[in-house]
Amino acid sequence: MTDQISVADLPLRPELRGQSAYGAPQLTVTNQLNTNENPYPPSAGLVEDLVAEVARLASTLNRYPERDSVGLREELASYVSRQTGVQVGVDNVWAANGSNEILQQLLQAFGGPGRRVLGFTPSYSMHPILAAGTQTEFIDLPRTGENFSIDIDAAVQAIGEKKPDIVFVTTPNNPTGGVTSVADLRRILDAGREAGGIVIIDEAYAEFSGEPSAAELIAEYPASLVVSRTMSKAFDFAGGRLGYFIADPAFIEAVMLVRLPYHLSTLSQAAATVALRHSNETLATVDALRGERDRVVAALEELGYGVVPSESNFIFFAVPGDAHDIWQRFLDHDVLIRDVGVTGHLRMTVGLPQENDAFLAAAATIIGEHT
Amino acid sequence: MTDQISVADLPLRPELRGQSAYGAPQLTVTNQLNTNENPYPPSAGLVEDLVAEVARLASTLNRYPERDSVGLREELASYVSRQTGVQVGVDNVWAANGSNEILQQLLQAFGGPGRRVLGFTPSYSMHPILAAGTQTEFIDLPRTGENFSIDIDAAVQAIGEKKPDIVFVTTPNNPTGGVTSVADLRRILDAGREAGGIVIIDEAYAEFSGEPSAAELIAEYPASLVVSRTMSKAFDFAGGRLGYFIADPAFIEAVMLVRLPYHLSTLSQAAATVALRHSNETLATVDALRGERDRVVAALEELGYGVVPSESNFIFFAVPGDAHDIWQRFLDHDVLIRDVGVTGHLRMTVGLPQENDAFLAAAATIIGEHT
Repeated sequence: MTDQISVADLPLRPELRGQSAYGAPQLTVTNQLNTNENPYPPSAGLVEDLVAEVARLASTLNRYPERDSVGLREELASYVSRQTGVQVGVDNVWAANGSNEILQQLLQAFGGPGRRVLGFTPSYSMHPILAAGTQTEFIDLPRTGENFSIDIDAAVQAIGEKKPDIVFVTTPNNPTGGVTSVADLRRILDAGREAGGIVIIDEAYAEFSGEPSAAELIAEYPASLVVSRTMSKAFDFAGGRLGYFIADPAFIEAVMLVRLPYHLSTLSQAAATVALRHSNETLATVDALRGERDRVVAALEELGYGVVPSESNFIFFAVPGDAHDIWQRFLDHDVLIRDVGVTGHLRMTVGLPQENDAFLAAAATIIGEHT
Repeated sequence: MTDQISVADLPLRPELRGQSAYGAPQLTVTNQLNTNENPYPPSAGLVEDLVAEVARLASTLNRYPERDSVGLREELASYVSRQTGVQVGVDNVWAANGSNEILQQLLQAFGGPGRRVLGFTPSYSMHPILAAGTQTEFIDLPRTGENFSIDIDAAVQAIGEKKPDIVFVTTPNNPTGGVTSVADLRRILDAGREAGGIVIIDEAYAEFSGEPSAAELIAEYPASLVVSRTMSKAFDFAGGRLGYFIADPAFIEAVMLVRLPYHLSTLSQAAATVALRHSNETLATVDALRGERDRVVAALEELGYGVVPSESNFIFFAVPGDAHDIWQRFLDHDVLIRDVGVTGHLRMTVGLPQENDAFLAAAATIIGEHT
């Protein structure tokens, strides 16, 4: 069957006309440092357990999955309690196909037509896209503090004036790498609660930071705080697509009103459960990546690049020229990094030592050409 | 962390307040004939191939999945071409986490605030829920024809008057089991095109019917027809969560504007691909179920029940009394069927021969008590 018509011939929603689909290029490049993946594959022990679990479950695939993913959520609660020191139970945790689906469900329940979400940009580029997808107005407050941090006074004032239904705070922030302190989060939470909305703290990269998790604030802000997380980054599990959030149990009841029934497949639940049981091995890779991150930051600064301090698995740095041109120069060196659309800056994901070396070699050549 | 607040304390969207979550009871019962699953587990060969594929892919789970699921879509296109006789290619097929996500994406692109969807009820109970979740107004046109068929003249008139942006037609229809002929679909498609909207033909149960697939109409209605399908039913793959649609390539471009990036995990793509390679074994179970369906229909009629003719893997039948009371009587006999909320009717899913025997034994006792 051949293509007879074009998308312009379809009765699409007007705001989608002329748009293009989201997504970083999926190119085949030796050094793939563009999507903040963890470069370490799952351990042999994890793979072995996963294969055994799939063998055990495959013969039940004709049945619908456990609809509320209770077993997986128990394992997530146990992991969060260990990793953050905040004791949470199965009723505090909800899981979905990646943090994108987590955030979409929260926007469906608390955002939507006639409602507003406020975010501090540059930040995770899916936040405004998810807002648009749920017809939620996105209010953009630029990060004007040092190193792209949030100006908290300006934030508190804007929240008071705009009264957003949802505030997004990403910490560590993607793509810039810095964190928002618990003291500053508390000021945003106070303002958000006062405005009658909720605050979603996106901790996708939490394991790479020394900062305490905002989960410790849930008891203080039960009706206004949701902490979202993902297994894509620290957990070497981007392919498994597992996001979750931590909140008062009332929020789990709320998203159950909008979630698609049986949204998480039997295999997704099983694979994530197995991965969580191997969290100690996995988190060892986080330590290795933090070490590599600090090495790359020091080397980049030594080369003369301006680097934003990072508490994540990626590095945001200033480049000597047009960001897209420099991005292409890295690609010419077989190093794929990310142009996130911030003037004069690029983002590299910390990879394996040899990948980071290839990146640094390219960085040395490129800065030599521009100085 | 204990529950401090209730969902009523959260700033939920007003239309969600007081709602309860969708879903059939997940009870443990010997004869589970309530969710239209295929009772046959995947074949030993399929399980073996799946385990081998997971073993091969597990070490790549730290990387994001192939974003557009091209390999899986090729396999789906090949299956659809074989099963329907309509030659389709990778660009005609789109896949997501179950047909619920497929329909949600289509509603996001073509429905949404200020737009309307028309459905013929009783039908798949998720259609109005998905409409509500995307703020699309749902217009309900009752199936007033014989055996809950669509009155096509009334349908054409309603489409002309209401000018819905989307029309849903489920064929074979769930929960009633009957089909809408290709000739009648063409009349609905003509009316839908005239109204400027699209028509989604939900063929979740197509493999159980002898009726040709509406896929053969895509060439005639490229800008207005989408055929949605699922691997949950015929494919013994409810736990794998894989839905898909078949349409002109322009529709695939359209949903790519609203899909969440990386929505289908590496494991979901792999498992569905493996299952499709075993479609011949799997479709043999469909033949067995069609045989059992016809046996159960004949036996129910023999017992004195009124049965709606079925071209699916479930049977909709009239009961001698209050539907919920009779549903409970079946449960007392360790047989879980479905009360879909249609006065005086219940739906049973065709199971294994011994499950169907248990159902028929209960049906015999129950009708004896009521006559």
